Amino acid sequence: MKRRDLLKGGILAGALSLLPQGVAQGAPQNLPSLGRRYRNLIVFVYDGFSWEDYAVAQAYARRRLGRVLALERLLARYPNGLVNTYSLTSYVTESSAAANAMSCGVKTVNGGLAIHADGTPLKPFFAAAKEAGKAVGLVTTTTVTHATPAGFVVSNPDRNAEERIAEQYLAFGAEVYLGGGDRFFNAEKRQDKKDLYAAFAQAGYGVVRTPEDLARSNASRLLGVFYDGHVPYEVDRRFQGVKVPSLKEMVQAALPRLASYRNGFVLQVEAGRIDHANHINDPAATLWDVLAADETLELLTAFVDRNPDTLLLVVSDHATGVGGLYGAGRSYLESSVGIDLLEAQKASFEHMRRLLGNSPDPAQVKEAYRAMKGVTLTDEEAERVVRAIRDRVPWPEGVRQGVQPDNTMAWAMAQRNAAKPDRPNIGYSSGQHTASPVVLALYGQGLRLFSLGLVDNTHVFRLMGEALGVRYQNPVMSEEEALEILKGRPQAVRHPEDVWA
Amino acid sequence: MKRRDLLKGGILAGALSLLPQGVAQGAPQNLPSLGRRYRNLIVFVYDGFSWEDYAVAQAYARRRLGRVLALERLLARYPNGLVNTYSLTSYVTESSAAANAMSCGVKTVNGGLAIHADGTPLKPFFAAAKEAGKAVGLVTTTTVTHATPAGFVVSNPDRNAEERIAEQYLAFGAEVYLGGGDRFFNAEKRQDKKDLYAAFAQAGYGVVRTPEDLARSNASRLLGVFYDGHVPYEVDRRFQGVKVPSLKEMVQAALPRLASYRNGFVLQVEAGRIDHANHINDPAATLWDVLAADETLELLTAFVDRNPDTLLLVVSDHATGVGGLYGAGRSYLESSVGIDLLEAQKASFEHMRRLLGNSPDPAQVKEAYRAMKGVTLTDEEAERVVRAIRDRVPWPEGVRQGVQPDNTMAWAMAQRNAAKPDRPNIGYSSGQHTASPVVLALYGQGLRLFSLGLVDNTHVFRLMGEALGVRYQNPVMSEEEALEILKGRPQAVRHPEDVWA
Repeated sequence: MKRRDLLKGGILAGALSLLPQGVAQGAPQNLPSLGRRYRNLIVFVYDGFSWEDYAVAQAYARRRLGRVLALERLLARYPNGLVNTYSLTSYVTESSAAANAMSCGVKTVNGGLAIHADGTPLKPFFAAAKEAGKAVGLVTTTTVTHATPAGFVVSNPDRNAEERIAEQYLAFGAEVYLGGGDRFFNAEKRQDKKDLYAAFAQAGYGVVRTPEDLARSNASRLLGVFYDGHVPYEVDRRFQGVKVPSLKEMVQAALPRLASYRNGFVLQVEAGRIDHANHINDPAATLWDVLAADETLELLTAFVDRNPDTLLLVVSDHATGVGGLYGAGRSYLESSVGIDLLEAQKASFEHMRRLLGNSPDPAQVKEAYRAMKGVTLTDEEAERVVRAIRDRVPWPEGVRQGVQPDNTMAWAMAQRNAAKPDRPNIGYSSGQHTASPVVLALYGQGLRLFSLGLVDNTHVFRLMGEALGVRYQNPVMSEEEALEILKGRPQAVRHPEDVWA
Repeated sequence: MKRRDLLKGGILAGALSLLPQGVAQGAPQNLPSLGRRYRNLIVFVYDGFSWEDYAVAQAYARRRLGRVLALERLLARYPNGLVNTYSLTSYVTESSAAANAMSCGVKTVNGGLAIHADGTPLKPFFAAAKEAGKAVGLVTTTTVTHATPAGFVVSNPDRNAEERIAEQYLAFGAEVYLGGGDRFFNAEKRQDKKDLYAAFAQAGYGVVRTPEDLARSNASRLLGVFYDGHVPYEVDRRFQGVKVPSLKEMVQAALPRLASYRNGFVLQVEAGRIDHANHINDPAATLWDVLAADETLELLTAFVDRNPDTLLLVVSDHATGVGGLYGAGRSYLESSVGIDLLEAQKASFEHMRRLLGNSPDPAQVKEAYRAMKGVTLTDEEAERVVRAIRDRVPWPEGVRQGVQPDNTMAWAMAQRNAAKPDRPNIGYSSGQHTASPVVLALYGQGLRLFSLGLVDNTHVFRLMGEALGVRYQNPVMSEEEALEILKGRPQAVRHPEDVWA
């Protein structure tokens, strides 16, 4: 099928071209250049972070915490721009295609890691950096084998093959891996019963499993895995006593180790669960993960100040959910109440579900919302939550938000009173990723007046390459080729976003 | 009440400070400077325009129209940044406080035009520009007397006093006023029966009421009023034959008139109904008003190219509704269907309501959706729409979206099928303004590498002043003073946003 035919086509899902014909010469080719080199590179990914999340965190930090976000200071004073995030065949990307665009510099189909739809592997940027002698670190609040970190180091047609990705990590041999995902390393939990912890230890890694072990370890190479799956949300760590390290604590452990390497390092830090909280429409979980990211950002900018041969690149891979603080009351004069009411939210829905188990009664549900969300549910709302948890019946009106029990838990506390907000006036457009451009910001010596503008996410690859002097080109696939391959494919494999959805 | 007490307070709506104590020195004071002067200034306001709207329009233009937005090119290649929009006492602004911040350089309470809550009038920027000898023009798709244009030229404690504002316009004497609002000029419709058209004609204005008259007029000063209230949406003008000029046609009429003045001019162009469409959650109305704005932007950048002593400043006053294209299908591979399905949407809900009248039957409602939105409603959905229009009973689940019949009309066609999107996968977080930072972009000679970053909306005032060499300072009110005044006030006056809400 030729491009012309594609453009002529009718309304066929996924069958039309993302890019117009004949406007190549008019299309923005915005390729801003750094104009200088760095020894170290830190890429800080805010996963699933929208401008609405930014506004809520900025307001909460100012009003309830009496401080200005490190990210606000960065956006005000240093080069920043916007990133277009669409993948090769979809205006809405998922996290692996977004990671690939940044890590490999080419657009791919949603779903695989550093690979094209026809199986052509791509070289991820951190693999190239390693060949150039850089130490490598991955630190995340998701499973350490999740798409965003994994897409920077290894190639795999299935981003969900996390047991296999754990083995690829061993072979890859980064200096630091920190995050969640015990089930992909632990012999008792893995399908194949391989003991990956033993294998990493044998390869010279210090293996740590608790915040205390992390703080105590003096190993120069480190595998830290702190939870069965994703690392619990900051709101639960901070207020519910869940024992995991914070993102900042993990980065504090990673930095001195990486900085000790003579040739410099590359480090990806991911605030990975902003995305998950937004899939679930859980504003407090999002807020505190953004605030935890901000404390980490403060640490990273301080590191750059002490190590001016370091470039810090802050970027989001896509927006999720778009939870906006919206106007409330006459002339919107009561809008700030949403920020204040957030203060009473002291746990995530994920944590509430752990406490409520699989068949709570409505009274338990109401008490959990009262104590942990500061919200009084009606009997009907509580009953809906029970049915979602016990019988897996999602609230039908909220299906756009997702069909997981947690989505119904979020929908149950949505504002019902337009005149007088008694629940946080934060609304979500869906429980999915969206198409909006997202943040890109740089921090490093010599960049103060640098202008970025709107760039494609593939340009992150070029900025990283320029920063370290590591340049190469991965093979490009056209959208037409990709669509042909997708047509011949059976139903796409399940992805985490489908679970969240 | 002292600031310390305010910060200590509990959860009291509107009673806490927006800005933290003791972080003044750490707060971003991002005041980028142009470093040069211009003769003419054009401020193009995208009212209620979010980054999600941008993404949908960018995608639609590329995929369905085969072109790249003028705004995309601007964002890629010229200085741009982000604007914080909060008003003096609310994280969510309404349009008059947003207009005041830009026009007067100081934060005000939501609701009044170029005025503080204690009645202290402020000098709007276009009034100062007029004193400096500039010709003045206002072109908008709202009523020409609406908050965003009005706040740039006159002071009034009530933004809704549009009959009075029309008289203030006559006294002010701008060279060009183009937009809607016949009811505020027409003797038969005004409460006081004054004939403002006659008064404007007597003052030397050419008065035009139709697209044909607009095209034919050779008057050097122009009042053009093209509809009873707001100018109908572009989607209705384009596909339903509603007879009004496009925004581009109005600007085409304004530019040569203003450019003929020796001392230069200031012009505000407002794509004012993007906001309204977003209040109603009407994606096709938003899309086509954004595309109409983009055609106007193309015209304006071409004018700047021919008149390099002109600065064009593109800015949004706030986001509204945040209608995001969200991920659909396995691995989000069917997400683009939302863009394709939009093509079948050929009318706004406003237009459909005009056709349906006050007591449609369900069959008529279903037919209207089929023909004009490309959506097949269920019987229950059609019945809900009938009840909303006939009995003013809003869909309770959608109350966050607003209580107007049009809000229920939008809610009725929301996606209900998570697995297979058969309606555009565009979701809204609410029917209200939100707190997110919005677009700021500049176009003009000598600006190519200029870096803007995140600025406050009051900084637009300083950029305009620097551009024209017109500098002054309006009186500042503290948030504490404003909160004290608000406490003593009766229930705030009704505002258009309350109607939309």
